[in-house]
Amino acid sequence: MEVSVSRKAHFNSAHRLHVSEWSEDQNRSFFGLCNNKNYHGHNYELIVTVTGPIDPVSGYMMDMKVLKDIIDAEIIERFDHKNLNMDTVEFKHLNPTAENMAVVIWKLLRNQIESHLKLKVTLYETERNYVEYSGN
Amino acid sequence: MEVSVSRKAHFNSAHRLHVSEWSEDQNRSFFGLCNNKNYHGHNYELIVTVTGPIDPVSGYMMDMKVLKDIIDAEIIERFDHKNLNMDTVEFKHLNPTAENMAVVIWKLLRNQIESHLKLKVTLYETERNYVEYSGN
Amino acid sequence: MEVSVSRKAHFNSAHRLHVSEWSEDQNRSFFGLCNNKNYHGHNYELIVTVTGPIDPVSGYMMDMKVLKDIIDAEIIERFDHKNLNMDTVEFKHLNPTAENMAVVIWKLLRNQIESHLKLKVTLYETERNYVEYSGN
Amino acid sequence: MEVSVSRKAHFNSAHRLHVSEWSEDQNRSFFGLCNNKNYHGHNYELIVTVTGPIDPVSGYMMDMKVLKDIIDAEIIERFDHKNLNMDTVEFKHLNPTAENMAVVIWKLLRNQIESHLKLKVTLYETERNYVEYSGN
Amino acid sequence: MEVSVSRKAHFNSAHRLHVSEWSEDQNRSFFGLCNNKNYHGHNYELIVTVTGPIDPVSGYMMDMKVLKDIIDAEIIERFDHKNLNMDTVEFKHLNPTAENMAVVIWKLLRNQIESHLKLKVTLYETERNYVEYSGN
Amino acid sequence: MEVSVSRKAHFNSAHRLHVSEWSEDQNRSFFGLCNNKNYHGHNYELIVTVTGPIDPVSGYMMDMKVLKDIIDAEIIERFDHKNLNMDTVEFKHLNPTAENMAVVIWKLLRNQIESHLKLKVTLYETERNYVEYSGN
Repeated sequence: MEVSVSRKAHFNSAHRLHVSEWSEDQNRSFFGLCNNKNYHGHNYELIVTVTGPIDPVSGYMMDMKVLKDIIDAEIIERFDHKNLNMDTVEFKHLNPTAENMAVVIWKLLRNQIESHLKLKVTLYETERNYVEYSGN
Repeated sequence: MEVSVSRKAHFNSAHRLHVSEWSEDQNRSFFGLCNNKNYHGHNYELIVTVTGPIDPVSGYMMDMKVLKDIIDAEIIERFDHKNLNMDTVEFKHLNPTAENMAVVIWKLLRNQIESHLKLKVTLYETERNYVEYSGN
Repeated sequence: MEVSVSRKAHFNSAHRLHVSEWSEDQNRSFFGLCNNKNYHGHNYELIVTVTGPIDPVSGYMMDMKVLKDIIDAEIIERFDHKNLNMDTVEFKHLNPTAENMAVVIWKLLRNQIESHLKLKVTLYETERNYVEYSGN
Repeated sequence: MEVSVSRKAHFNSAHRLHVSEWSEDQNRSFFGLCNNKNYHGHNYELIVTVTGPIDPVSGYMMDMKVLKDIIDAEIIERFDHKNLNMDTVEFKHLNPTAENMAVVIWKLLRNQIESHLKLKVTLYETERNYVEYSGN
Repeated sequence: MEVSVSRKAHFNSAHRLHVSEWSEDQNRSFFGLCNNKNYHGHNYELIVTVTGPIDPVSGYMMDMKVLKDIIDAEIIERFDHKNLNMDTVEFKHLNPTAENMAVVIWKLLRNQIESHLKLKVTLYETERNYVEYSGN
Repeated sequence: MEVSVSRKAHFNSAHRLHVSEWSEDQNRSFFGLCNNKNYHGHNYELIVTVTGPIDPVSGYMMDMKVLKDIIDAEIIERFDHKNLNMDTVEFKHLNPTAENMAVVIWKLLRNQIESHLKLKVTLYETERNYVEYSGN
């Protein structure tokens, strides 16, 4: 009897899409406004989904307060009110696209979630765009 | 050609997280505020998803009005404006965590949905926490 | 140059609509399901709006973190994960309708907000019902 | 390393549920209000989800601006501010149920999305009803 | 002590913006896609707000179930799953813009709400466009 | 017969709260994380509300497409995918708090809206914080 438990969180960051191996022109024409030299930003909405069996005694699959604390410590502390390109080691050399961000967040959380539980990450960059990653 | 059809509903209930085999202290330290002796409550948002083939004549997979009526009769009537721990047989001896509630709701609906159709239940306890169960 | 600054918060409570001067029958027929003897509950969504001049140096009308702290101390601590009828002095003898709750919350906050600033409270009982009060 | 990228769009259309092989009475009793002779309408909310590997250089799975342009050209141009039964070839002889619409939209988009990428369509007819189709 | 109580409802209608005194060309150039001859449609989201004193005994300003019943009888019955231009007397000769609809809805409700109470109507035509009218 | 017509728009920007007359320490202690040297960012949600009489012939108070075009030209072009502190003349010397932004946006739009119409601006910085300004 496996259930999925999901918890939402959010963080506000500045970023710029930019590939350092490419010329200025290539970057501008490929990423458009998202390449703006002085950055732009987003309210990122994050949904973390953990899947596993329900504990028959407590009735919990995973304590959502524990899940919230893991998200706060691993993700919010690291990325909230930061410039992703300048202030974080994760995106110093990796382009902070929503796709790369979902994968990075998944890896950071994977270390903290017991290995017999499945993990999925959903990241909204805007209300109209989002990315999902589940480690496959 | 299989499609999934989903219908949202909601109900408002009081509940308390409590394991009767545990001491007062154990309950309080494990469930925190959710163990409050006199209950607290939620606006539960429920999404019921049914999956199967489209009927080639009507163009329906399942009539959403029929699905709504099943949800009303089986779930809303039973749990809306109720105290889950005191007023329902389902949670008299089962801790009404969101996980247990999703499984109970799934079983109640499973009896009413034709057996060749797949069924999934998503239950929001708050805007930030939700649970999914699909019978596996 | 007056602006309004609004901050959202939420809390989860159990309650029961009941007028102690009325008979059981009167209560049941007037309040319907909301009179359920063993309570039901809601995710209350609260919006607090403060209106006043912008400080020309800081550019703030009011620090939203300060506003959040006031809401947490006065409202969330008091009502979150509580039974409004049983666990609070405010609704021991006052019927916890959304209207009365909005007025009580307004008065609790009014004491903490500087008197030259206007105050308004919006309280969502469900996604479809809400009440506004601004002290007039 | 496969991620899913989703993009939301919307369009406003009139439609009527009606099976031409059935009598007026059969249609009315089966589809109820949705059979109204002079049509009714909806704000359709569409989510298009594409799944595939992340490009290791750009960090994109698929450029969301490209995805948006495909949705605009194939779906919005075709269905927005239209009467689905009268103004479109797709639903001249096919009943425009949400189920059939999801399949039609999926097929129109499938032609425009590279074949090694997976495609899923989610269509909200109202805030409370939605349909998903992924081509299986 | 005046509070405002608001109740949300929704209905799905087809309509066409068209001024019969104007030529086809004038209509097309002024209303654009909204003039489509065969109609388009919307999920209208309606918020009805009533303002007045709280009853000191019941704690209600107005029973939201009564307000819901008035909205159902006067608005939902009349406009839901209808073609506003063809199926309703209100918009047979009046252009069903969101502005005109808000005024018509306000007048229909004004007759049913006690005259010492203030009334306001908010009508969402899409998630991004809405109109408010309060009778002034 | 005055109605209000509202139109939503959004833009994504980087910013930093900082008062140049203050020391680094003062800024950090007053603005906290929002003072982060390398900026952070937001998805700003903007609601523009215009109030005036309905034109008796067209049934419009104001054409929402015209309003959308004004918002695009004056606000979205100027602030979307920009660093407010570095890339805009408006916030080169003015702290880009949500309060100051609402006033700046109001003034930019006021020039483009006919003077007999009232104008109000609502700006969401996050889902939980917003500011309103109507020129008084």
